[in-house]
Amino acid sequence: MRPLFAALIHYPVLDRNGRIVTSAITSLDLHDIARSARTYGLRAVYIVHPVAEQREFALRVLDHWRLDYGRLYDSRRREALDLVETVADFDAALAAAEAIAGARPQTICTSANTSGGIGYTQLRERLESADCPPVMLMFGTGFGLAPAVRKCADLELEAVRGPGEYNHLSVRAAAGIILDRLRGR
Amino acid sequence: MRPLFAALIHYPVLDRNGRIVTSAITSLDLHDIARSARTYGLRAVYIVHPVAEQREFALRVLDHWRLDYGRLYDSRRREALDLVETVADFDAALAAAEAIAGARPQTICTSANTSGGIGYTQLRERLESADCPPVMLMFGTGFGLAPAVRKCADLELEAVRGPGEYNHLSVRAAAGIILDRLRGR
Repeated sequence: MRPLFAALIHYPVLDRNGRIVTSAITSLDLHDIARSARTYGLRAVYIVHPVAEQREFALRVLDHWRLDYGRLYDSRRREALDLVETVADFDAALAAAEAIAGARPQTICTSANTSGGIGYTQLRERLESADCPPVMLMFGTGFGLAPAVRKCADLELEAVRGPGEYNHLSVRAAAGIILDRLRGR
Repeated sequence: MRPLFAALIHYPVLDRNGRIVTSAITSLDLHDIARSARTYGLRAVYIVHPVAEQREFALRVLDHWRLDYGRLYDSRRREALDLVETVADFDAALAAAEAIAGARPQTICTSANTSGGIGYTQLRERLESADCPPVMLMFGTGFGLAPAVRKCADLELEAVRGPGEYNHLSVRAAAGIILDRLRGR
């Protein structure tokens, strides 16, 4: 299995009116995405937020579970949250992943609003082949990644779809589903 | 597609030490599971809680998004939360589903701790065949459904697994992944 990473991006993302905003970090995002990441063998998850106070909030949540009380309460949470790192921008996430994987990851953005993109079977097979570079999946909070971020990604991943047209999954559910499609047994 | 329902059960569930407890309703569970349910074409989601005050809390969350402010803020949330109903016990969920589907649903419990169970491909095919009864998926909060509940279910669903042994997904992620495996495109 090739190294797989994820970044949860809080800026620049869209609000419900399509304006570019910075979203707040949600503590349950950290837990849920960390647990999904650990389940599907990711190497690290980067919480990307430009505001220092928000990164400090995330660190307090992480420290609660990684140290002292939380560690004793539930070691499986610690095991998942150990994968999580906070960074100020996406370049810092890429640099950190490169330090782990030994090569700069290919970036693949996720979106509910794309009609094209690389398919799950194809990406799954690539991730299982020895010559695939490390991969960084990009998840947007709020109402999704801003167009400028999507354009910078090397590839876009096919949208997750159910049988109908409604596809407004939470980022917590979408991340779990995407990782399951790529790495589930 | 045959009618598919889900129940999110707060009692009897296990705590981290395997004791039987009643868990609290989490507002984000309602949102995330409702959005996944709408995406994958479920007919209804039942929030099962024996404590009236907890059901009233859930109703306040639902009403906030279904009426007035929340409705204007984001109609897609309302569309998802319209699927959600609160009930005092699992029998009431079954009766409500029967009233919608015209037949009592087959009950299928989900668990991270089972080594057997019906497979996803098999259940997916059954849900697509005309002679399948309606199906009710049972999700446990806390550390999972109590053994007594699991024993009462007609069937158990195979556990969700990634490439390794760690499989402590949040119920929000697990519900999304399971629905995607059964109904994803």
